[in-house]
Amino acid sequence: MNESSGLFAAAEVGNRVDKEDYAEQIAELRVELLNQQYDLRERKFSVVLLIAGDDRPGAVDVLRTLHDWMDARYLLNHVAFSSDHAEDSERPVLARYWRRLPPDGRIGLFLGGWPSSTLRTALEEDHDLATYDVALHHVAQFEKSLVDDDTVVLKFWLHLPRAVLQERMEQARRDPQTHWDFAQHDWEVFEHDGRAFDLIERMVLHTNSVEAPWHIVESTDFHYRNLTIGRAIAKAIGQRLAQPPLQQQAVPFEGEIIGQSLLDQVDLSASLDTDTYDSQLVMLQARLNQLAHAANQAGVACVFVFEGVDAAGKGGAIRRLVKALPIQHTRVIPIGAPNEAERARHYLWRFWTRVPKPGKNVVFDRSWYGRVLIERVEGLIAPAAWQRAYEEINEFEANLADNDIILAKFWLQISEDEQLKRFEARADTPYKKYKLTPDDFRNRENWQAYQIAAHDMVARTSTSYAPWTLLAANNKRHARIQVLQTAVDLLQNRLGEVR
Amino acid sequence: MNESSGLFAAAEVGNRVDKEDYAEQIAELRVELLNQQYDLRERKFSVVLLIAGDDRPGAVDVLRTLHDWMDARYLLNHVAFSSDHAEDSERPVLARYWRRLPPDGRIGLFLGGWPSSTLRTALEEDHDLATYDVALHHVAQFEKSLVDDDTVVLKFWLHLPRAVLQERMEQARRDPQTHWDFAQHDWEVFEHDGRAFDLIERMVLHTNSVEAPWHIVESTDFHYRNLTIGRAIAKAIGQRLAQPPLQQQAVPFEGEIIGQSLLDQVDLSASLDTDTYDSQLVMLQARLNQLAHAANQAGVACVFVFEGVDAAGKGGAIRRLVKALPIQHTRVIPIGAPNEAERARHYLWRFWTRVPKPGKNVVFDRSWYGRVLIERVEGLIAPAAWQRAYEEINEFEANLADNDIILAKFWLQISEDEQLKRFEARADTPYKKYKLTPDDFRNRENWQAYQIAAHDMVARTSTSYAPWTLLAANNKRHARIQVLQTAVDLLQNRLGEVR
Repeated sequence: MNESSGLFAAAEVGNRVDKEDYAEQIAELRVELLNQQYDLRERKFSVVLLIAGDDRPGAVDVLRTLHDWMDARYLLNHVAFSSDHAEDSERPVLARYWRRLPPDGRIGLFLGGWPSSTLRTALEEDHDLATYDVALHHVAQFEKSLVDDDTVVLKFWLHLPRAVLQERMEQARRDPQTHWDFAQHDWEVFEHDGRAFDLIERMVLHTNSVEAPWHIVESTDFHYRNLTIGRAIAKAIGQRLAQPPLQQQAVPFEGEIIGQSLLDQVDLSASLDTDTYDSQLVMLQARLNQLAHAANQAGVACVFVFEGVDAAGKGGAIRRLVKALPIQHTRVIPIGAPNEAERARHYLWRFWTRVPKPGKNVVFDRSWYGRVLIERVEGLIAPAAWQRAYEEINEFEANLADNDIILAKFWLQISEDEQLKRFEARADTPYKKYKLTPDDFRNRENWQAYQIAAHDMVARTSTSYAPWTLLAANNKRHARIQVLQTAVDLLQNRLGEVR
Repeated sequence: MNESSGLFAAAEVGNRVDKEDYAEQIAELRVELLNQQYDLRERKFSVVLLIAGDDRPGAVDVLRTLHDWMDARYLLNHVAFSSDHAEDSERPVLARYWRRLPPDGRIGLFLGGWPSSTLRTALEEDHDLATYDVALHHVAQFEKSLVDDDTVVLKFWLHLPRAVLQERMEQARRDPQTHWDFAQHDWEVFEHDGRAFDLIERMVLHTNSVEAPWHIVESTDFHYRNLTIGRAIAKAIGQRLAQPPLQQQAVPFEGEIIGQSLLDQVDLSASLDTDTYDSQLVMLQARLNQLAHAANQAGVACVFVFEGVDAAGKGGAIRRLVKALPIQHTRVIPIGAPNEAERARHYLWRFWTRVPKPGKNVVFDRSWYGRVLIERVEGLIAPAAWQRAYEEINEFEANLADNDIILAKFWLQISEDEQLKRFEARADTPYKKYKLTPDDFRNRENWQAYQIAAHDMVARTSTSYAPWTLLAANNKRHARIQVLQTAVDLLQNRLGEVR
């Protein structure tokens, strides 16, 4: 092992706290931390606590100590349960952390966490620096999302001078009581040719934001280490608790389109006669079925997103799409108002937890785009929240795309007249689910606002890796065929020739 | 392959429905099914739909058909996502189905499901009939739990005469369009020496209850098969929807203890001085730590349950226990009032989803016993619900025990005076979480009711595989040492000598 690099030199000055001093200070600190846990439970934000570092047994000891100092019943410990899930390993690295985010009012504890997973992946798969930097970018964006969502993010890197680290690993190897704390993996990482240390420094530098800074803690003396971390936690949570709860104000919809709306470019007169429709439907469904089976075999997953105003024809289009997909690998997920658990977390949480495994298909009837559609138009969130959502959504979708997931997003465009016609026709259907509610007509008052919001959405989230397809949907047959054709094209492009 | 056995002979009579008749009947059926889905969403029960059988491609076709007939957005399809999860395979077979139960108002669809998993396990692990029968008993009890909780359970077994099955498998093998529908596994099962068919018949016989009967459906003609299943679904859901919602009445607590209460046998004068406590604590924690590490290595999981009245000392006892357990393998879960998602499902759902993986520890601060304690005493559920809970709980715990999970259940017994003393002392602590609420004193009015409920609970759920330990907890030191000693004993008994 080489000498420690510059970034960590400041954590090698020999800090110590003596035993009496320690005992005295933690007595006070414990009361403070416990009371903070109690106060936190009443508040609308959560705390994410990350303990990482080259000193793995030190990190385990910190965790043990925090469980002892604080009320373990209200610490969500994601150590025992976060690593080595086969389920996790099949999804984007960050999915496993997104799904384990604490709800408002709680503290989530992570050992190693996303920095360790990223480092480990880079080492195991021997990534070049460009790939590693992309992964670090995702990490930084993940932390930014949390902070923007009012989560307190606290990150500690426990550092040991290399000579001390080596000595402790040797000791641990011999001692049956402590050797559990070093995983086999640690030996490999730190006995590596020094590359791990370069990657660690790079990670700390690239993910050291103002909102979620790294606390690099000298770990040689455990009194100093535990006290430093405990105090930093108490300080950060204390400061946050002292801030008054955010008052989010509903704001009337504002927005305009400079120049032409993207939606106006959709030719709503497009139509398809029944015969052409019938023959194309059968052909495209058969073709899509072949491709979808091949995608399943190849481990390529698909996410289909359907958005559009009420009565735009999402349900019917989804039905034709789903009929072509292998039903044993397909799930349809309708998105409505968030439930209690969802409201207590970041709005993307309920989508991160539904990222498909390789080879599976997920069809969303409405989606995360609700953030920039209904939530924006109806003034359910502060303007800053939907304004930053475009970037958050692009980042989410980039994560999926990087993980070999095909994204197809459909906006079904209909005219205001056509919607009215369909509402009126619904009164005559034998299907109760189509019986109208007063809401349906009330929503029509916001027609123009939804059109502007949809324009902004398409303009800002149609990326090369997750493009929007705008469908002329006044004619249902036309829209349905376009959906199938788009799906076929996307799969064919990805898979090449499939028979 | 041999001739079909007697049970299935009735499904080999050559039922057919012609094409025109089919088209005509499904038009009506679809309207009925869609409207039922719509009505169901307003109701407080769910539907569990199981499609299983020797005709696997037929089962996939039924699933596809149901997605086409009904509103796919409100079908929870647990095909794509329920099999082959590594996470699942480490837990009791039924855990994967418990965690995927639909909430009230929804239909959950399972392909193969728990009968297939049970059959597969028996074949793969070459179980003898006694072991198989235990598994079938768990399956039957699982279904009974669902039905008792007002879930509509519909089970279809799709049957093909063996000659037809063989022919179709041969065909499928050659046809690239359908061979996906037979998994490799199917070839193995059905080309087996006929043992599979004996086990299937045994399963159908053993799990054919009045509440959750098997519908054995002749699968040779797909019109007949799909129509039969569609109609059976519409009939069952329609009948259930026609029943008025259950009116559960709160009932004032009633109960008495014949003879002596088990709790009175606890000698509340038991106590431990500080010096003895300090030395035993250190010794037992060290010993437990060793054992827990060994259990982790051996893949033995532990579930610790703490129950007792307020201020009985659960929190302090848990803290001493957790300090001894390897924190990277331990989670503490406090149980309070159920949240929205939990209220929409069977009360055991939130515990089945928290069953530990091999080698992990879960500590419950309050637990599923809330059903027979607070929910009974406060009249939150109908008497029939808590009365059958004892059996349900014993069954749940038997599942855990069968899966190599150690269960330790602690009831911390204190006197009424001691509780009052502790409440009064809390006013002086610097910990806000101990500040009293008026509820605390109100709950004291029910002291005797809780004592009776606790007696009944211990009497009816202290099994050989999941015994209760009654702790004299007026002296906290005494109770804490007993907890640690019990944990050490249980682990030692299981693991033998560990150093």
